[in-house]
Amino acid sequence: VPDFAKVADAVKAGDVRAAARLMRDLDDQVPGAVEVMKLLYPHTGRAFVLGVTGNPGAGKSTVVDALIEHYRKLDKKVGVVAVDPSSPFSGGAILGDRIRMQRHATDPNVFIRSLATRGHLGGLSRSTAEVVHVLDAMGHDVVIVETVGVGQDEVDVVTQAETAIVVTVPGLGDEIQAIKAGILEIADVLVVNKADREGADRTVRDLVAMLELRGHDAREVEIVRTVATTGKGIDELVHAVDRHRQRNSAAHQSGIPERARRRAEATLREQVVDRLRRAVDDELKKHVDLVDRLAERTTDPYTASDELVRAITTRS
Amino acid sequence: VPDFAKVADAVKAGDVRAAARLMRDLDDQVPGAVEVMKLLYPHTGRAFVLGVTGNPGAGKSTVVDALIEHYRKLDKKVGVVAVDPSSPFSGGAILGDRIRMQRHATDPNVFIRSLATRGHLGGLSRSTAEVVHVLDAMGHDVVIVETVGVGQDEVDVVTQAETAIVVTVPGLGDEIQAIKAGILEIADVLVVNKADREGADRTVRDLVAMLELRGHDAREVEIVRTVATTGKGIDELVHAVDRHRQRNSAAHQSGIPERARRRAEATLREQVVDRLRRAVDDELKKHVDLVDRLAERTTDPYTASDELVRAITTRS
Repeated sequence: VPDFAKVADAVKAGDVRAAARLMRDLDDQVPGAVEVMKLLYPHTGRAFVLGVTGNPGAGKSTVVDALIEHYRKLDKKVGVVAVDPSSPFSGGAILGDRIRMQRHATDPNVFIRSLATRGHLGGLSRSTAEVVHVLDAMGHDVVIVETVGVGQDEVDVVTQAETAIVVTVPGLGDEIQAIKAGILEIADVLVVNKADREGADRTVRDLVAMLELRGHDAREVEIVRTVATTGKGIDELVHAVDRHRQRNSAAHQSGIPERARRRAEATLREQVVDRLRRAVDDELKKHVDLVDRLAERTTDPYTASDELVRAITTRS
Repeated sequence: VPDFAKVADAVKAGDVRAAARLMRDLDDQVPGAVEVMKLLYPHTGRAFVLGVTGNPGAGKSTVVDALIEHYRKLDKKVGVVAVDPSSPFSGGAILGDRIRMQRHATDPNVFIRSLATRGHLGGLSRSTAEVVHVLDAMGHDVVIVETVGVGQDEVDVVTQAETAIVVTVPGLGDEIQAIKAGILEIADVLVVNKADREGADRTVRDLVAMLELRGHDAREVEIVRTVATTGKGIDELVHAVDRHRQRNSAAHQSGIPERARRRAEATLREQVVDRLRRAVDDELKKHVDLVDRLAERTTDPYTASDELVRAITTRS
């Protein structure tokens, strides 16, 4: 029997190897890992969790890189969870310009963890929340969760983050503008990166117009211009983030803040769906015959799923 | 008791209102809807299912629009499933330049259905497979499944499609190139759209290099240049699609084709995970206290999810 308390203590003391092993054990569903998490959880909630999302190509990684540098200058311990869109077949995470961040990888006070997004084919389903909890319990002052892409990933960010930064860039096409309207709803702070490019003024105007459509809750969303590659505007960004954080905590002095409830519900849903998803994968492996029959068209997916749901809900 | 056979017959006869009602009932989990699907399923498998995916801003919708026009000239009935990234909070689908396709909306032989992607916050979880089955059973000759974004959505496309088209565009940034490497793995035909733009030659060269890395199964992936707004290259694209389809069916004359097994498994997984996800949503509503305790930090997500998993797996 591994000593869960010992592992938890090592993680709480900031032991990087113990934390990395724990994250791997969580991925591999080593049963004891969850017991360690139960011990760690009371020691979470101290880190400032900052979400960074936006359009592919907007320079999110460069913004994150600049934020790491900023917080390191203030001598803060920084954890980064970079959620990568992974290939559905190889399951491999794509680094892209994440490499830029790697210059911080040798800094003992920066912990960067890449995470592949869940995909139903590969059965990959790693929990962002779990990694954030580990980084938080390790004593990181700031945990930055960065996601690429649209849709599902943004939800994960807002779930974990106290403040959500949405990064955009001048001169994107119509479709991207449309997507932006979606992710705009989760923005606490908006960044127009590569603001030295032509069209930055128009992008800011567009964002202002979009925020007006969003209504009164958007009134306090600040728009910050940055050129993250040179560090320009990063101080302003951090100030905007700090102001959001202050407004946020002032608004939630009494009772359970709505955001905390939303986060709790989403975290719980993620945990439970992950576990059920793994149960589905297990049952699919056991029911090769069912998949064959479906491929041969001697059954239909509706009847076949009845059978599988029955197997899962009666097995525990 | 509604007459399932009557509904199924109406859908098989191509009744648009009956089909739309059935899709809505599937969304709303009206129990009889699944019974209708069981009756319809033996009448599916005749449509040619074509997936179209790629980077945001690559002009996928314009390519789909040009393909609709092409197939309509051949007097084919065309169904389109447009999977939209939806706002996690409003749950609303984003139209973007989908509007372009709407000129076909008045054509009785074109059926366009927008589908919001699933998001765990909203609990939205509509099945692409179900909609494809309905369109197929209605007698559509071609069903085009279009997705926006990266990651999860591409998996859905390849799951349903016999041939997967990946659309890209010259002059995208590094990060997008990296994402492309991921979606490249699912491509049967590659399209460089907006090929009149500067950099098209380089994009084609990059794709060739990427295909070489992918290995021998990529040897037959054709790269087609299009300017979808003018219809340029669409004939070539359709020919490339036809050639892939022929090679595909020739390769799979004997036994259960690997792709059919993969599709069967993914369809089954999607169905089962969808149903379990709804069960999770139901249980979350019943366990408001659990969410409150988690938000108050008087429990942890690991212990709370034990409780919820137990509730779900013992309730049927």
